[in-house]
Amino acid sequence: MKVGSYKDVHPESFFEGMVLKRILIGPKDGSPTFAMRLFTLKKGASTPYHTHDWEHEVFIVDGTIKVVSKDGEKIVEKGAFVLVEPNEEHQFVNVGDKIAHFICVVPNRGEQ
Amino acid sequence: MKVGSYKDVHPESFFEGMVLKRILIGPKDGSPTFAMRLFTLKKGASTPYHTHDWEHEVFIVDGTIKVVSKDGEKIVEKGAFVLVEPNEEHQFVNVGDKIAHFICVVPNRGEQ
Repeated sequence: MKVGSYKDVHPESFFEGMVLKRILIGPKDGSPTFAMRLFTLKKGASTPYHTHDWEHEVFIVDGTIKVVSKDGEKIVEKGAFVLVEPNEEHQFVNVGDKIAHFICVVPNRGEQ
Repeated sequence: MKVGSYKDVHPESFFEGMVLKRILIGPKDGSPTFAMRLFTLKKGASTPYHTHDWEHEVFIVDGTIKVVSKDGEKIVEKGAFVLVEPNEEHQFVNVGDKIAHFICVVPNRGEQ
């Protein structure tokens, strides 16, 4: 068993520090099947509009996030979940007035 | 893409309503690899001390949870994560003074 707090996990920084990614549980920890990451989006930050051939399963922990896909946009808050299917275009934007956090789980091959 | 709120997902009830399980994203939604569930533990509630041959990846969303394994106990709060390895004994107990929520991700075969 591995138990920890996200605060003790060193973040990778993207887009001039506007987006932080922490691998909470991943292949290096012995995750058998999938990896759990926590993303932090500072106010106004966004992830790129992109795609890849694995899925995301997302849960909003804090803040207000606009979820963008080819079908449009949807604004969600704490308690929301998102399934991004393989090869589906997607983007997450912090449209709130404070930091946002979400969990994003991927199969191990999405987090080597 | 599937977007929703946990509040709109009908819960399964266990242990006289003390533990609620909501399958946010699972095989019935087309999850390719793994399923995301949200557990709600009322004050004093606990899951059974048990084991199975698949892993859990857990993130504490709200509340104060005691995590029990053969190695002992650890009390964690919002922002904590837990990797339960396959065949590892485990239990989650709400030891706080309010409702607790945690995300628990399993491979699809753990949530048919």
